Order: sequence, then structure tokens, then C-alpha cells
Amino acid sequence: MRSKTEVKEQIINTVKTVKKTNPMAASITNTVTINFVANAQLAVGGSAAMSYLADECEFLAKMGGAFYINFGTIIPLYEEVLPKTAKILHELNKPWVIDVVAVGIGEIRSTVLMKLKDYKPSIIRGNSSEIITLAGVWGLVNNTNDMRAKGVDSTDPVHAAKAAAVAIAKWTNGAVAVSGENDLITDGSCIAYSEGGSHFMSKITGAGCSLGGVMAVYVTAAEPFIAALTAHAVYNLAGTKATKTAKGPASFQIDFIDNLYTVSADDIANNPFIIEEV
Amino acid sequence: MRSKTEVKEQIINTVKTVKKTNPMAASITNTVTINFVANAQLAVGGSAAMSYLADECEFLAKMGGAFYINFGTIIPLYEEVLPKTAKILHELNKPWVIDVVAVGIGEIRSTVLMKLKDYKPSIIRGNSSEIITLAGVWGLVNNTNDMRAKGVDSTDPVHAAKAAAVAIAKWTNGAVAVSGENDLITDGSCIAYSEGGSHFMSKITGAGCSLGGVMAVYVTAAEPFIAALTAHAVYNLAGTKATKTAKGPASFQIDFIDNLYTVSADDIANNPFIIEEV
Amino acid sequence: MRSKTEVKEQIINTVKTVKKTNPMAASITNTVTINFVANAQLAVGGSAAMSYLADECEFLAKMGGAFYINFGTIIPLYEEVLPKTAKILHELNKPWVIDVVAVGIGEIRSTVLMKLKDYKPSIIRGNSSEIITLAGVWGLVNNTNDMRAKGVDSTDPVHAAKAAAVAIAKWTNGAVAVSGENDLITDGSCIAYSEGGSHFMSKITGAGCSLGGVMAVYVTAAEPFIAALTAHAVYNLAGTKATKTAKGPASFQIDFIDNLYTVSADDIANNPFIIEEV
Repeated sequence: MRSKTEVKEQIINTVKTVKKTNPMAASITNTVTINFVANAQLAVGGSAAMSYLADECEFLAKMGGAFYINFGTIIPLYEEVLPKTAKILHELNKPWVIDVVAVGIGEIRSTVLMKLKDYKPSIIRGNSSEIITLAGVWGLVNNTNDMRAKGVDSTDPVHAAKAAAVAIAKWTNGAVAVSGENDLITDGSCIAYSEGGSHFMSKITGAGCSLGGVMAVYVTAAEPFIAALTAHAVYNLAGTKATKTAKGPASFQIDFIDNLYTVSADDIANNPFIIEEV
Repeated sequence: MRSKTEVKEQIINTVKTVKKTNPMAASITNTVTINFVANAQLAVGGSAAMSYLADECEFLAKMGGAFYINFGTIIPLYEEVLPKTAKILHELNKPWVIDVVAVGIGEIRSTVLMKLKDYKPSIIRGNSSEIITLAGVWGLVNNTNDMRAKGVDSTDPVHAAKAAAVAIAKWTNGAVAVSGENDLITDGSCIAYSEGGSHFMSKITGAGCSLGGVMAVYVTAAEPFIAALTAHAVYNLAGTKATKTAKGPASFQIDFIDNLYTVSADDIANNPFIIEEV
Repeated sequence: MRSKTEVKEQIINTVKTVKKTNPMAASITNTVTINFVANAQLAVGGSAAMSYLADECEFLAKMGGAFYINFGTIIPLYEEVLPKTAKILHELNKPWVIDVVAVGIGEIRSTVLMKLKDYKPSIIRGNSSEIITLAGVWGLVNNTNDMRAKGVDSTDPVHAAKAAAVAIAKWTNGAVAVSGENDLITDGSCIAYSEGGSHFMSKITGAGCSLGGVMAVYVTAAEPFIAALTAHAVYNLAGTKATKTAKGPASFQIDFIDNLYTVSADDIANNPFIIEEV
């Protein structure tokens, strides 16, 4: 199994490499939180570029170190653009991240998600309800009770998504990250739980979306499991710190992004986590 | 007539119910201020979801407690999606709010607004020029002088929109809210004027849009008139408070959202207002 | 040649006129930074309106004092809307500004940019790589080595874009503004270099986009060269000031917008710049 010491060193390397190289991770992401995604990516040391068009996304996929696809606000154009971009990323063997916001709602979202299964995203993130639903939609778990009524907010605790997350990670040979009280990150064989964060996270829009964008930045410099864990660690640490200075959700968001920028690689690696075998 | 004491109790109940139940009010809203709308809805205790697609909006209309439609940045897709969603809301008898930004500009906006007349939105909000124009477009006032050259900013004082607002509220059997120096809220038989606010409100984009989103949250828990008045009261109170701490429009917006989150139900109910018969 | 004294007086007049008249400059701009563009325009004293539709843009072009077109996130609709709007602005002789974000990426962006050449935008702004690429695309410089591999971030120093900027300004008979360490603004016969700014500018998204929006506000009240220089001056001054109070990129952005709002016309005119003949 991975040792905590080894994992901490990998986190430190990831954070430092990103700050030194400013890697570009392009995004197709929702209009609600698109600004927060870009600013979070910049704050941790990455570079951002957003697009809606297939030919531009192909260019950005080739040019960038990784890619981020967020399912928040689907538009008809995405029926063509998302599978095309995912196919290119798969063929290029470029790492990419999807945030399966509101999986199960709407026809385009469902059609596209089915098409993405074979392109095996490097990291899949969501809340527990979304991950449970995705595992069902992709046919990776048998228990149909694991299918969920779905929405943008989770109705399940993190541990309920453990089997689904492991099944998905085994399928993609990548990582799955589940946000919640304690975040769960798995590569299919081991599981890390990242601690910290803030009650304000659910009082601002885009905490999850921007976390996915930051994972895309880190996965330019690390394997999926380490990239996902590093992103959760910096989010939990910056969230914990910002909670102490915030006067409400808006000042929390400002302090949070400031902390994303200022926290050190060592402090990120030392943000509390536990690691165990599946 | 409604007594102020009774109204204050209803405001307190509305605020407390929303904080306890986190009701979801989905939105079709403009890309300029979509983030502010969501964050304001979260700050007062609601839950947000934004969409552009007809089938998703139908799902969200059924699942949520209310719906918000904002006419800020119209796209061709809305010609189909807005009337479809409004029809479903009407058939489901779900409360919904429209913000008639820039009514009178553009063909799609005008066509869609005409179609929405018979679906009778629970709350209609806008500045005085927009409300006057809407009453003319919908044929609810005779005086064609009440038709206005129109834009995004109001060129009329609030009291000039009184007859138009009352006529619209009588038609919808709902509430109409007019933003201005003192805000006017009417259910067609009585009128409330809500006081307070800030000169910074016109120096940030989205104060009106996010106010509409907050009305949609409150209308899950109260009749349209009380929901609209509660939203104006919390906006005016948070605006007054934030003006004292702000160093400019950007810090005003942060302090304003923080105050939306922290002000108490009692203080919201006690924000100055007067009430009179039409 | 223009004297510095004369230029400073023109800057002061521009800033004061805008604060007094609240001129409206409508925009077609990207979804990433659309909110920042609007808030920056409001902070300096202008008024904002964003649209995606040809008939609305025509209305806003006629009604407003200037127009802003930003190439950040292209959508298929723009293939029709951008040239139509540019044509109307040209015919109306209304000043307008383009920000050539990511020039050279994608088919629609390239097709549209070619069509815009003959409509001669009053101000063209971008980073040095973008301006060099545009001069090549428009066939205004001979040296094909001046064509650049292109992205959203610049890979060239400002002075490298001098010949390209001058060539473009001579063609449009307007101004070209190049962002960088020291910003370069030219009308084809003289060049100003504006000093100041902040290292945080590249750590937030939209510094350039919102600068273009502010140029559109100022160009309602001044000739293109003065409008562009005034916008760079207020950005550099507000950036310098905000750097002293910021704790990170997010608080920088808040302090920056607050400073856009509070800095005086005199202080903007006195922000360090040099001026020389081409």
C-alpha cells in the first residue's frame, strides 16, 4: 500500500511543479461558476482557457497539459463537443477530469455521459449521490438500489458512495473523488480520506466545480490519485483557514481563494488525511 | 387591509422557514450575473440550480419549490425554453418569478413576454420603466404615453409605475415589485414601500437580478406579496449595513452578501416600510 | 507631437466626463469574465449592457455611446452577430473596441476577425502575441516570422509588438493598445508607455477583458488614443494601489475595483507614462 510519507512527498512535488511551470488546463464548464473555476486554477499556479467549440477544444487539448469537463449547465452544442473532445483526449492519452454535476437529469447530459464511459476520464469527481448514480448509469454496480433520485445537492453520506467510487476507478484505471464531510479519493485499490474544509463551502456556488478545475491543473503534474488528493488537501486547508477570518459566505470565498494562493506545499501535504486499502 | 404587525410576522416566518428548509428555486438567468444570483439565493438559505434546456427545466420545475426566469441575456434557445417552462409552472401551480430586464428590446424577448402573459407569473419585478413598458405591452393600461423608450436602466421614478404595477398584479393575481429610491411592492389591492438600500446598488451589476432570485427562494415559503416584500427588506437592510463598511463597489458587494447571510429574521421584518391601500 | 501636459488634461476631461454622464457601452463578451467587465465599467462611471443577439446589438449600438467586442469565448451565433454589429457600428461611425483574445485559434474566430478588418475598430487591444498575430492575419506586416503560435497568454515582450501595433493603428486610423510589463498605446504616429500595475493582474482572470470594456466607456468621451491611455492609466494606478492592501489574488480584485471607483481624475492623469514619436 502507499505510505503516507510517500504520498506527502508526491503532494509537495505536485504543488511545487505546478507553481513553477504554470501548466494550462482548458475547460468546458458551466456559466454559473466559470469565473471561480478560472480564478481557482490561477490561484494554485495553473493557467486557464475556456471554450465552447469543438475545433478550439481540440487545439486546447493538444496544447494544454490536461482538460476539465464540467456538466453543470449543458447546452445543445455539447452533444457534439463533449464526446469529440473526450475522444481526442483519450487518443492523445492526455489526462482529463470530469465533474458529473446533476448526473441523471436531462437527455443530453445522459447521452453524453454514456458516450464518455469508454474514453475513461482520469479523474471523476462529484458528491456521493452523483457518484452512486454514475456507477449505476454506467452499469458498474449491480444493486439498482444504488440508483438515486438526483439533483445538484447530495442526499447521501460519503461512505455510501465507496463501492460505486471503487468500481468506477477500477473501470477507468484512474481516480474517483467524492466530496462530503470527509472527502473520499480512490484509485480503485486504496482510499484516502481528506479532512478539513468549511461549512461555508455549501453556502457559495462553485466550490465543487472549481475543485474539479484545480484537479485538472494538478493532474498535469501527477498521477490522477495524487492530483485529486492534492486538490482536496489544498481546498480543505484553505477552507479551514478562511473560515476563521470570514464574516459570511462572500468574504469566505475571497479569503479562500487568497489562501489557495498563499498556502505552502508543506502545509498542503500536512493537511490531515488517512489512507487505507479498499 | 393588511396590518403591519401581521406583515412583519409573515416576513419573520418566511425568513425562518427558508433557513430551516433550504428550498430549491431553479433559474433560467443571464450570464452576466448568474453567479451573483446563485450566491444570493444560497446566502439567504435557499438552494440554486441553473439550466438552459427545456427537459431539465421541466425536471427542476417539478422538483423545486419555485422558479426564476430572468430576461437579461436572451439566446435563441429561449424562444422555445421560456414559454415551455412557464407553461409547466402554470400547470403545476408552482410559484415563479420573472425579472423583465430590458423589456421592449429585441424580437425574441418581446415574443416570449407576450406568450408569458397567460401563464401569470407569481411575482414580476423590474425598475419603473420596465414595469410601465410591460403593462403597455400586455395591454393592461390604456394610456399609450405609458409606453417607454426602454433600456436596462430606469428613466422613471418609482411612483410613475404605480398604476402599471397595480394593473399587472390584478391581472396575474400575484405581486409586482418595482425597484427604485423606495421600492414599491403591490398585490393589486395594497402597496408596500420598502426603505433603505445603498447608492452602491447601481454601481454593481446584478443587484436587481439577484433580488429576483431571492424572491423565488422566498416564494417557496410565502404568498407572492410577502415573498417580494421580504426580499426587498433583506436587500435594503443588507445594503444599508454594507454601505457603512464598504470602501467601494466591490467590497460593498462582498459585505452585502455577507449581510444577506447574517441578518436576523427580526431585523429584516423591522426594516422600515409603509403599507397603504391602492 | 502631443505634449504630456495636453495629454494629461485630456485624460482628466475623459475621466470627469464619464463620471458625469454615465455613458452606456454595450458588450458582446466572453462568459468567463463578463461580470468583471460590467463591474469595471460601472466602477469608472459608465453603464453596461451585454447581449448575444443581432437585433439587440443593433439597438444597443444605436442607443449607446460605444461598443465592446471581446473574442474570449466564441459561440456559433457570433459568426453572424459579430460582423453584423461591427458593420452597423462602422456605418454609424460609433466608436468601438475589440479585444482579440486568442486570435488565431479556431475557424469562427479567424473568419470573423478577417471580416472585421474593413470595419476598422476604433481601439484594438491585446497582449503582444495577439497583436503581432493580428497584424499578420490582416496582412499589415510583411515578415511572416511575426506570425505567432498563439494562446491566451503572451509569449512576447511588449516592444516586440511595436511595429505590428503601429501598422494596425495606421490601417484603422484608431488606436492599438498592447498590455505587458509597460503597456504600449499607439495611434500610429506616437506611442505612449503606461507604467504601474501589479503582478496579481496575471493571477486573476479578466484583467485584460475588463480593461477593454473600460476603454469602450472612455471612448464615448475621447478620441481612441486618449481613451486607451486613460484606461491603462486607471488600471495601472488601481493595480499599484491594490497590490499594497491585497492578501492574495481575490482580495486584490476587490481592492482593485474599489480603487477603480475611488481614484481621482488628477491621480489617473499623473500615473507615470512616457510619450514618444513612432
